[in-house]
Parts: sequence; structure tokens; C-alpha cells
Amino acid sequence: METVKYLLSEERMPTAWYNVVADLPTPPPVVLHPGTQQPIGPADLAPLFPMALIMQEVSTERHIEIPDEVQSIYRQWRPSPLYRARRLEKALDTPAKIYYKYEGVSPAGSHKPNTAVAQAYYNKQEGVKRLVTETGAGQWGSSLAFAGSIFGLEVLVYMVKVSYNQKPYRRALMEAFGARVVASPSVETAAGRAILAEHPESTGSLGIAISEAVEIAAQHEDARYALGSVLNHVLLHQTIIGIEAQSQLEMAGDYPDIIVGCTGGGSNFAGIAFPFIGAKLRGERDVRVVAVEPAACPSLTRGKYAYDFGDTAGMTPLVKMHTLGHTFVPSGFHAGGLRYHGMAPLVSHLLDLGQIEATNVQQIETFSAGLTFARAEGIIPAPEANHAVAAAINEALRCKEAGEAKTILFNLCGHGHFDMQAYTDFQAGKLKDFEYSAEEVAMALAGLPSVG
Amino acid sequence: METVKYLLSEERMPTAWYNVVADLPTPPPVVLHPGTQQPIGPADLAPLFPMALIMQEVSTERHIEIPDEVQSIYRQWRPSPLYRARRLEKALDTPAKIYYKYEGVSPAGSHKPNTAVAQAYYNKQEGVKRLVTETGAGQWGSSLAFAGSIFGLEVLVYMVKVSYNQKPYRRALMEAFGARVVASPSVETAAGRAILAEHPESTGSLGIAISEAVEIAAQHEDARYALGSVLNHVLLHQTIIGIEAQSQLEMAGDYPDIIVGCTGGGSNFAGIAFPFIGAKLRGERDVRVVAVEPAACPSLTRGKYAYDFGDTAGMTPLVKMHTLGHTFVPSGFHAGGLRYHGMAPLVSHLLDLGQIEATNVQQIETFSAGLTFARAEGIIPAPEANHAVAAAINEALRCKEAGEAKTILFNLCGHGHFDMQAYTDFQAGKLKDFEYSAEEVAMALAGLPSVG
Repeated sequence: METVKYLLSEERMPTAWYNVVADLPTPPPVVLHPGTQQPIGPADLAPLFPMALIMQEVSTERHIEIPDEVQSIYRQWRPSPLYRARRLEKALDTPAKIYYKYEGVSPAGSHKPNTAVAQAYYNKQEGVKRLVTETGAGQWGSSLAFAGSIFGLEVLVYMVKVSYNQKPYRRALMEAFGARVVASPSVETAAGRAILAEHPESTGSLGIAISEAVEIAAQHEDARYALGSVLNHVLLHQTIIGIEAQSQLEMAGDYPDIIVGCTGGGSNFAGIAFPFIGAKLRGERDVRVVAVEPAACPSLTRGKYAYDFGDTAGMTPLVKMHTLGHTFVPSGFHAGGLRYHGMAPLVSHLLDLGQIEATNVQQIETFSAGLTFARAEGIIPAPEANHAVAAAINEALRCKEAGEAKTILFNLCGHGHFDMQAYTDFQAGKLKDFEYSAEEVAMALAGLPSVG
Repeated sequence: METVKYLLSEERMPTAWYNVVADLPTPPPVVLHPGTQQPIGPADLAPLFPMALIMQEVSTERHIEIPDEVQSIYRQWRPSPLYRARRLEKALDTPAKIYYKYEGVSPAGSHKPNTAVAQAYYNKQEGVKRLVTETGAGQWGSSLAFAGSIFGLEVLVYMVKVSYNQKPYRRALMEAFGARVVASPSVETAAGRAILAEHPESTGSLGIAISEAVEIAAQHEDARYALGSVLNHVLLHQTIIGIEAQSQLEMAGDYPDIIVGCTGGGSNFAGIAFPFIGAKLRGERDVRVVAVEPAACPSLTRGKYAYDFGDTAGMTPLVKMHTLGHTFVPSGFHAGGLRYHGMAPLVSHLLDLGQIEATNVQQIETFSAGLTFARAEGIIPAPEANHAVAAAINEALRCKEAGEAKTILFNLCGHGHFDMQAYTDFQAGKLKDFEYSAEEVAMALAGLPSVG
């Protein structure tokens, strides 16, 4: 009862990313200036990003070519494998066919290098010397550190304090790649100092860390900001995952009935799902797409679709997205990469259009699913990926009840090699589930800016 | 300046292992019974190993077929990639061509599953229910735990105490795969209790952990012992690495002038080198082969070629090997997988025949080399693999001095994702070099059994 691997040859690695904006029935809502609340243009973003990325951010072209140098770096680990999880199917005794795309084969162990390498490349092209960013669990920070080491760029990472303490080895990985890592909130920025003045014991959040990184990047001419999720160009770079999966499922002679991805900012979900959603939007082929988020940070399932800041200090542009409010600080659960108050505008828009569904799962269920997966398939998933695993297993078990042989595809966005403390805690019965009360969610949403 | 990957298609994965014994000019010395000191036969080993593995241990056939089921599990991660390290070559400014075979792509993150899967398969075939083993850093234990989970075998691991404490996440990985892990020396065995009575603070050694595992396996009819290195059949299973590398270098239009592998018990070294040594022994193609060991556990470079026990308690058969004496307890340096008092008999025999060279390196040099490699190639090597990296870099720098464009091949036997504390300590300047005095080595060698 073997695992079956579908591996594309290097020659079949996609040479263009897919931009879902080209296929949307209605364009995504405009982005607003945080001060004037007027629509912003490319020039407004120039202090933060290189122009090539800004143009991708606003592009409506369906396909955007992947530069040769980026392709050649991708080829170190891409095309990534697609697996048929036969041993998991057997363990679940389900008639469903379960496929997973495995992004843990990258140098940093997740899907994040797909965009880190592209971002570092475009910044290097435009003469940038330093990249400043935030990171939660450290998947993104270690990916940008890797990309920075390849292109000779300095990398400075503000790491959410709870993860900085929970995951010292992710920090060690970033430092091994030559990056400087600072626990956020820090005293290095005005945004960090303001938070610490009010909440000296703050465990931090992605929103706060973004404020710190944006502040530093905006202050230095040779520095730019880099974001690991949420923005259109970041989601764009991840679509190589889904495009590869399309070719690999074609090799398998199959097509998904259901696609599952976990969502924090939305980038790995977009990566696996957008190319299939494009086919659906173009009327070529239907598919059910499920976004899975933590019950303890439920922006899609319990947040509001509204204009909000991307960061806590309110320095970023205003974007319309599913959000819990930019002042929301989620509890310190282990899937640090999913602890973001908002959701990618494009993912939010697709939910609003009814093109995708959203669900949430509790922490303990995700780790239980992760161990079931590990013992069947031999790969320890990252805590973030365990959300997708849990939802995929639930879908497979529903197939078992209904006696339906559906085809399920999910994205195993990263391995859990740096998250073993979480597994240790789980096996020792120390993990807790967590859910916000309706009052707590309402209070967080009360912090939304009034727009228009 | 990209990294170039040579990836074999699955169809080109080797279907047989290579047995170097077939090509040796003189056969390896016989194995002796620990009590009678007479040559042992297959039946003597039956309480410890399934007969299929015993027959491989004594085989003189050149090629031994890989069972279909083992092949199908291998295909989850094999053929493993061969990389040309162009970015490292550039960083070193060397005319040498550096290739590395990367075994960190396996589920357990090292070459060890190549033999763990095969051993679990043959044990399962012969009705065994439980496997008992030892582990140092945990690479082997996690690999056997993985293989056990695939075949539904219980796995019990005696883990050297210093590593048990240094590497809690390797332990967590074994437990995630469902294995039971016990710190060695333990009170569960007579061998462990004897050590603890004499040395209550013992940090353990592979030799002690082997005594514990052998004792338990021999006591239970449904249990067998599994060893992760040293023995002929273990080295045999690793030769798939070198056979793949031969095909991949053929794709690259190249052949190594120098092959480098790190040596603890000798299995990853044998895996990459034996197929090339076979070609050399058959007079087809010359190659220089270098075994690299830690200065703090120098069995090949400072030990004696003599009959010795494989374990500390003296329960295993006597084998002729380069050894520091079975009572030798190496210092607690970070490359736990290389902390073994002896060396594989076949590797020892090849050194004695002048077919290979041996060298040793200090801990700090290995981590410095590891970081140079990580920043160039994006992969964090395991501390064990850093020994090969250091020696390969030294060879490349010698090429630079001499202006020679030699081709260097080394085995990057595993990643360092579970070893980040070692990198943290290195970057904090906390690691120390260590070398035994001539007196200390002589004292350890005084513990060798008198044979014949």
C-alpha cells in the first residue's frame, strides 16, 4: 500500500504565475490611502515596494512571466511533488481519493520561498540593499532570510514575541541564513514603543510586527518592506503550486471535487486554489473550495468584510477584507502563521462572491489530524498545515459516511520540523482549545476604522 | 548563479543494491562468537535478526534485488537529488566542481530510512512484531520509527542520554511516529543497570545503548534487534545513494576525482562511496575516497584495527574493525550520529587495503563550514553532514591553491532541522573543540578483548 508520487520534470515547471484578477466577474474593491481615504496609486506604495511588485499588485493580466533567474532558483526544489495519500486513505478506510501537494521540500520548509525568492529578486533588480519584514511562526522570516542570502540582501525580521519565545529554532534558522531577528513589539520603533508603553507584557501580533517593519522600511532609502502573505503579488507568486498541481492531477488522470487550504493571510490557500478557481470562473470546470482557519483567529468565519488597516498602528493602506479588527491580538496558539487579524483581499472577495467556503477548526483537532497523517504518510506537518489536514480528513470521513469516492486535494504547505515542541505539548495533553465569545469579537470589530 | 539539480526519473531508481564484498581482492575477516571466539554462522545471529538480513550480511553476490514493496516506499522521496553546488563554488572562488547528493529529502531527514524501510520489511515478512534499537542523535531512531509506522511494527528506541537531553525534538519526532523512546543507560536492562551502578552520571554512548537494545531483543521471541550502521547489510542498503549518484553524474557528463563522506559507523559513507569503489576495484575507473570523522571520536585515524565488540557490555559478536575500544565513551559533541567507538568492518577493511583515506576535523570547523554551505546553498546540514561539508570545502580550497578544476562529490546525508540548538550554540561562541591525548586513546585501547 504505497504512497504514489506525481513528479513533473523540470521542463514542465510553470514559467508564468496565474493572476486570478483577470478572471473575476467583478474587480476587487480599491485600496485607500490611510490618511486621505482616497484610492491610492502605484506611486503611493513606492517607499515600501519596488515598482515591479507594485505593478504586479495592480495587474489585470492573466499570466505574469516568472523571471529566468527566479525560475532557476525555484528549480532547486520545484516542481514540488504531488502525492496520492493511499496509506492515509487506508487508515481512514475512506472511498475518497486524497491528494496532497507538498511544499515542505523547499529550503525553508514551506511554500513561502515561492514569493520570498521573487520579492528578493525584484528588490535586488531595483538596487535595494535591505529588506525589512515581520514573521509569525518564522516560516516567512526564514524564507526571506534564505532568499536574502542568495541575492546578497540584508534581512531584518520583526518576529512576533510569542513565537520568538515558542520557536527559538526558527529564529536560529533565520540567523543561520544571516538575518537579524528582533522580538516584536520592540523598543527599536515608535510603533513598538507605543504598544509596550500601553501593554508592557504584550506577546505581540503580526499586525504589530508589520507596523514595526513598515516603519523601518519607510525611514530608509535603501530599504524596502516585504510581506509574506495577504497582498495580491504575494498570492500571485504562490499560484505556481496550483498550476503544477493541475499538471500533476492530469498525469494522475484525475480532477479535484474538493480543494482544501489553510488560511492565515491567505497565500498558501490562494497558491493551491486560484488556478482551479480560475478554471471555475471561466466556466471550464467546477470545484468546491474550502478555506480552513483556526477557531482562535476566525477572520473569514466570524470577522467582518470591511475596510481595515493591515497593521496595528494604522500605517498601511486601507484594504477591504474579512477582518477581526486591526487591534485584535489572537491568543498564543501554536499555528503562529495563522495568527493574523485580516485575510487577503482577493480571498475575502472570492468568499464574498460565493466562489469559496470557509470553516474553522480547533487546535487539538488539528494536532490529532497531524499525527494521523504523520503515521500514515511519514511527514510531520507544520501546525498551520494541520488545519488543512484536519479539514481534508473530515471531508474524507464524510465521503466514507456517504459512500462517495470524491477526489480531495489539499496543500501541505510546510513541515513541522521546527514545531516539535507543539507536538510534545499535544502528546502530553497540554494543548488547549480556544474560542472567542461573541462579545469579544464584537469588541475587536468596534476597533475598525470608519471609512467613507 | 543557480544551483543545478540532477533528478532521475522514478523509472531510473536502482532496483538492486550493490555489495562491495563481491569485488574485494581479499575477503573481510571472519566474525567471531563473543564466548567461544570461533567463527559464527547464520544460525548464531537468528535471535537478533531475520534470516533474510543475515543472508545479506554474509552474501558475496554483487547485486541484491530490492523488494518491490521497499522500492515503492523508497519512491516517496527517491531518487534523491544530486546538486551541483555552483553558489558554494562561487562563494569559495574555487575552480573545483562540487556535487552533493542530498539525502535530507527523506521523511526522517537523512539517509537512514534507506535501511530502516528494508529492515522493517524483512522483519515484517518473517512475522516479527517489535523492533528494538539504539540511537545517537536520533536520525536512526526516527527512521526506524517511521518505517515501523508504515509496516505496523512496534518500535522501542534506546537513545544515548546526552542526545536525549540535547535533542528533545528528535525524540518528539520518534514519538510522533509512535515509537517508545528510553534514555540510555536505563534501569530497564541489566546492561543499563550495570553501567549506572558504576557511573550514575553516565551520559551514555552508542555502545551502551546497543547493549540495552540487544539484551531486550534477545529476550523476546517476537522482537528483533535493528542496527542503523556498521553491519554489512546496513551498508548494502545505503548503496542506492551511490548508484543513483553514478547515473546522475553521467547525466552531468562528469565523474568524481574525489569522494567525501562523513563516518560514524560508516553507513552513509559506504552508501555514496562503495559503488564508485567497486568500479575502482574492478579497474574501470580510479577515484580518491576520503572518510571524515570527528577529531573527538577518531576510530579510523587514531583507533586500532583489531577484533572488538560492537557494544559496551560485550554481548555482540567480535568483529575486526578500526576501534577505540568498546568501553570508550566519547565526549558529548553535537554530531551524535558519529559518536561510535568502532567503524564498519567493511570500511575498516578498505582502509586497511589502502582503497580509502581517512581524516578528522574539529567541531568548530564543521559548523563554520555548515554555515558557509547553508548561506550559499540554502540547506542547513546536520552536524554529522557538516564533517563532509568541511572536508569537501577543504578539498575545494586546495584545488583553488593548485589551480586545479577537480570534481568533488560528497554526501549531504541529512538536514539539521532538529539540530538548531547546536547552531545557536555555535553562533553564540559556545562550542568547543576537543581532542583526546595519546594517553587517553591508549587507555581506551587497553580495554580491547584479547582474541586468538
